[in-house]
Amino acid sequence: MRWNIVLAALVWIAPAALADEGMWTIDNFPAAKVKAVHGWAPDKAWLDRVQKASVRLDGGCSGAVVSKTGLVLTNHHCISDCAEALSSPSNDLLSNGFLSADLREERVCPGAEASILQSVSDVTKRVKDATRGVPAAEIAGRRGALLAAIEKETCGENRKKRCEVVSLHRGGQYNLYVYDRYQDVRLAFAPERQAAFFGGDPDNFNFPRYAFDISLVRLYRNGEPAEFKVPLAIDPDGAATGELVFTSGHPGWTERLLTVAQLEFQRDHFLPWRIEYASQLRGSLLTQAGKGEEEARQAEEALFGVENTVKVIKGQRGALVEPAFFGLKVAEEKKLREALASDSALRARFGNPFADIEKVIPAQKSAFLGYQMLEVRLGAGSVLLADARALVRAAAERDKPDAERLTEYGPSRLATLERTLLAESPVHPTLEQLQIEFWLLKTREYLGADHPAVAALFGPRAAAEIARELVVATRLDDPAYRKRLWENSGETAASNDPAIALYRLIDAAARKAREAYETSVSGPLSIASEKVAGLRFAVLGDAIAPDATFTLRLSYGTVQGWTDPVLGPVGPFTYARGLWKRATGAWPFTVASKWSTAASRIDPDLPMNLVSSNDIIGGNSGSPLLDRQGRIVGLVFDGNIHSLGGAYGFDPALNRTVSVASPMLLEGLRKVYGATVLADEMQGR
Amino acid sequence: MRWNIVLAALVWIAPAALADEGMWTIDNFPAAKVKAVHGWAPDKAWLDRVQKASVRLDGGCSGAVVSKTGLVLTNHHCISDCAEALSSPSNDLLSNGFLSADLREERVCPGAEASILQSVSDVTKRVKDATRGVPAAEIAGRRGALLAAIEKETCGENRKKRCEVVSLHRGGQYNLYVYDRYQDVRLAFAPERQAAFFGGDPDNFNFPRYAFDISLVRLYRNGEPAEFKVPLAIDPDGAATGELVFTSGHPGWTERLLTVAQLEFQRDHFLPWRIEYASQLRGSLLTQAGKGEEEARQAEEALFGVENTVKVIKGQRGALVEPAFFGLKVAEEKKLREALASDSALRARFGNPFADIEKVIPAQKSAFLGYQMLEVRLGAGSVLLADARALVRAAAERDKPDAERLTEYGPSRLATLERTLLAESPVHPTLEQLQIEFWLLKTREYLGADHPAVAALFGPRAAAEIARELVVATRLDDPAYRKRLWENSGETAASNDPAIALYRLIDAAARKAREAYETSVSGPLSIASEKVAGLRFAVLGDAIAPDATFTLRLSYGTVQGWTDPVLGPVGPFTYARGLWKRATGAWPFTVASKWSTAASRIDPDLPMNLVSSNDIIGGNSGSPLLDRQGRIVGLVFDGNIHSLGGAYGFDPALNRTVSVASPMLLEGLRKVYGATVLADEMQGR
Repeated sequence: MRWNIVLAALVWIAPAALADEGMWTIDNFPAAKVKAVHGWAPDKAWLDRVQKASVRLDGGCSGAVVSKTGLVLTNHHCISDCAEALSSPSNDLLSNGFLSADLREERVCPGAEASILQSVSDVTKRVKDATRGVPAAEIAGRRGALLAAIEKETCGENRKKRCEVVSLHRGGQYNLYVYDRYQDVRLAFAPERQAAFFGGDPDNFNFPRYAFDISLVRLYRNGEPAEFKVPLAIDPDGAATGELVFTSGHPGWTERLLTVAQLEFQRDHFLPWRIEYASQLRGSLLTQAGKGEEEARQAEEALFGVENTVKVIKGQRGALVEPAFFGLKVAEEKKLREALASDSALRARFGNPFADIEKVIPAQKSAFLGYQMLEVRLGAGSVLLADARALVRAAAERDKPDAERLTEYGPSRLATLERTLLAESPVHPTLEQLQIEFWLLKTREYLGADHPAVAALFGPRAAAEIARELVVATRLDDPAYRKRLWENSGETAASNDPAIALYRLIDAAARKAREAYETSVSGPLSIASEKVAGLRFAVLGDAIAPDATFTLRLSYGTVQGWTDPVLGPVGPFTYARGLWKRATGAWPFTVASKWSTAASRIDPDLPMNLVSSNDIIGGNSGSPLLDRQGRIVGLVFDGNIHSLGGAYGFDPALNRTVSVASPMLLEGLRKVYGATVLADEMQGR
Repeated sequence: MRWNIVLAALVWIAPAALADEGMWTIDNFPAAKVKAVHGWAPDKAWLDRVQKASVRLDGGCSGAVVSKTGLVLTNHHCISDCAEALSSPSNDLLSNGFLSADLREERVCPGAEASILQSVSDVTKRVKDATRGVPAAEIAGRRGALLAAIEKETCGENRKKRCEVVSLHRGGQYNLYVYDRYQDVRLAFAPERQAAFFGGDPDNFNFPRYAFDISLVRLYRNGEPAEFKVPLAIDPDGAATGELVFTSGHPGWTERLLTVAQLEFQRDHFLPWRIEYASQLRGSLLTQAGKGEEEARQAEEALFGVENTVKVIKGQRGALVEPAFFGLKVAEEKKLREALASDSALRARFGNPFADIEKVIPAQKSAFLGYQMLEVRLGAGSVLLADARALVRAAAERDKPDAERLTEYGPSRLATLERTLLAESPVHPTLEQLQIEFWLLKTREYLGADHPAVAALFGPRAAAEIARELVVATRLDDPAYRKRLWENSGETAASNDPAIALYRLIDAAARKAREAYETSVSGPLSIASEKVAGLRFAVLGDAIAPDATFTLRLSYGTVQGWTDPVLGPVGPFTYARGLWKRATGAWPFTVASKWSTAASRIDPDLPMNLVSSNDIIGGNSGSPLLDRQGRIVGLVFDGNIHSLGGAYGFDPALNRTVSVASPMLLEGLRKVYGATVLADEMQGR
């Protein structure tokens, strides 16, 4: 409970310039600073090599190319969606794990997609020129159209490329990212979930830890393993305490540049709402999983996801309600406000963006629930309703000029949408029913029974009844039917499939809620945030890493434990022997059976997991932990509990990255799973 | 979202003295003020008469004696526990309702208890003398012993009396309350839940409203209906708009006198934790209810309870995060702090109690979860674990001198405990299993898998397994077995019943957590709060009503609607016709079948529900709404959504009490339910 006091003390003592903070873009890596602090920094060649082997996995993960024939090392929890999709009641790959004997046995992950960044170019000037003087209400639309056009110019309809314009520094900078895209990703190896997720939710975000959270997938091109000249090598000896290490991955989202007014909205409104929403869903899924084996199998992925979410959001809120933590954010802003107040040139350029943002918050408070429930969280995870929306909207959007489409239906984005929609992923009826009922009830709760969209959704039926009837009667669980509708807008428009019919009842309301949010909240916020970013650059220079945006970032740090206010000193490594010691015999503290069998073959002193001071966040899962030679010394799979406040600020004293140690990566593959062929491939033998 | 701005404006314009704020004790009712504002106030005779007809129902409700033979009018939701206990899979009284044809058919509510306040005497001096100079760590124990002694002096072991020393103004004042106690409470009438709870959770705390939330129970003495000389009469015409009205009831809990530091703890830590905890439980119960009819029946009461809780706590937190609302509390405290700063005599008497409280908060932050999970929320509602604790602890506590016992095992309290424990209430196995599993998981989550109590609880088993085995094998579901253990401490100590065995694993840890909390939090807080209360009296006089304490209170107000920031103007009455209009045909907006059948017999223009500006809070459910003649013009059953902030402050512009209108009380009984005999009895015919 007292950790933020410790944090405050340390941050004030150690100048920010010395902290290992920042998820840096490859093209703006602070090599000079790293060299000054740590005596070594990567050069251009090192950065290039690492970039070309760093994989982004759709769904929010990272990975590393570890063989010349496209093998990618990532986390188990990054492919659990895939393992679940490939499972059946008779063979649950999550429970049993998976090992392909050879290439022919590798199994396509339905809907999976991987990308590797090839180039970055600055398009800031073009975007700013095009949006200068545009009214707040139109800015989102205007900019969206331009970004779609820029993406299309470079990538066109080429499915092997992926183009995305990325906004850094909250609109301070726009870059075009061009990726090689892989839409054929196959599962080669996954351990049993029990090995990957030993300790379950209780140990999640905790350390000491004993997880073998790894998996191997392979990228294919034209039906053949994709070729890579310079994969990353695995160091069989691993890292030492104090060693300088790097992570290369795709952190998804941080909000370190939010203003105090925005942080207050997060702390007092948005995060508490999310916790309540997710906690109720968590309870539902837990009890659903207790109904029977098949219900449990269907609910498992969603349950782990929501439990992870609850922990994350609670950690974020917990950081923001600590006065010491929040005080740092207030102090940072005060500095900028003072600079503004004392410099008329800055005022002329930026006005008072803090006040602009404060004015937007009331609209955000009144608009966010409608936007969330009708648009962002449609169906609370229901694939059927997501597919229904994709079909209904695609039918409408495809007829529009590029510039007028909703972003995700833009020409360069449709391929990803189609890939997801047409994937042969199984639909889980008992899970769907739960999710749709939950979403209906929560939508009514938040918007009120008298809201027109709610009245339309419910009509004369109860939520459970609507969900049950929909799941029984829909045909959207059939990929062939989805394909037919996808290719035939007219048929979609005429369809009376109950999932499509239900979604259609609120399509207009959902579009309206989104437009209202963009017009009254996102638009004005983006204009003001851009000014805050400009002010930041003007006052602080470019010493600040941009917020995470699910694009490639490099962080640096050293292998080190921390002194925990509750636990006391925590060392940087755990060892195999600790696994046997911590096991109680009951889930989630059971040792996976293959590990029990192999117990005598595992060196008890082999490092299992380790922590380092790298600055990471969700999305970095599966990132390689690299040494100076660019060799993999660990596989990032988590952060410690103090890392959760990292969404809003980095605490060098306590925030730690958790990885599987490289010696155990190889030992586990060889001695526990007999994955000799794959291990040889990774070691270039 | 903007309501607190309206509130702030109005509160500052209208001096607090004019607002109808306050849940006043009968012996300190501000008659002069009421007369000044409303032109009339009750006299001593009126107050006496109302007091003697005002019923407190254990479990947190109120009621009114409405016949000379002990008939008590209260809410349906106040007897739903009883209706559930009297239900079986073949006759669910919650679904079907209940009407006794005559006295012989009235059914004993298992474990129910009612009390009627007879006298109040001030024991402040005695308590203060005995605790003066006692160290903080010992104060709770010392005072507890004295209160138990005072209670015993007057009530002894007399089960027809109930003695409780009540602390008002957070320790500013101590009063001995003496009640007539009734341990034979029988159900005479309950409508179907669908009539009582029309609109369900979505309409709970909302208005306009169409609920027939009434029930009738009868108090018995020595097996015969208890006799009352002056019951309260029902006004068949009801109240008019603008009319002065009173509520007489037992509001359970407010925290309007908390300091800013305490409110911050509520806002940032305690309430968010409660929301997360209750929301997960809510999701579990909702999904459990979807498993099957019997699971639904067993879960129903718990589900409605937790949904109510979630709404209440969210409303409380929502009020505290509104800067205007919180600003009022800060301003109030500022006034007191300034008075203290400018007056050395005050400082000499009280020191700086605000600073004292601030110093306690860190301990509260670190100790509350252990105390909550091991002590306050043991079993998350599980009757089996509550009974196991009562048995284990009673066996230990009864051997101790009175002064050393835990409060609830004190000589004057044991009767209530015994009554609850030995009641022939059914135990719901599927519900118990859910609650115990939930509690185990949450305890591990909050205290950590390595906490000794958690390690002891789990051993080598999973939570679901522990809960399942316990529920299957325990004998505590048998009242005869509970009685045997209750009467035989030795047998309890030797019992290996799995519920007792599980509880025994943590009894020491739970006692320790409670003691730690009392020593480091409650004790110091009570000393400081007493000083704040003293300061308040010194600075503000006795113009402030004490916080609610589940003791008899009178509030005054007028029949009036409000202007809602979201809904616009809301009138004070709803009418029968609105019920038919609002019905959708699907739960929870279905009209109960008896009402559908009786539709043509109900005057559509008859008032159904009404709102008034009385200041109430949870515990007031079942309170009579009274006119100047002391006649019942309504039956309080809810507050509007703005009333939820009432835990921390009263908003005269928006906070409204919701009642069933008296004309509909009689019309419903006679025309919908044919409860002619009971209606005649109420009307003295």
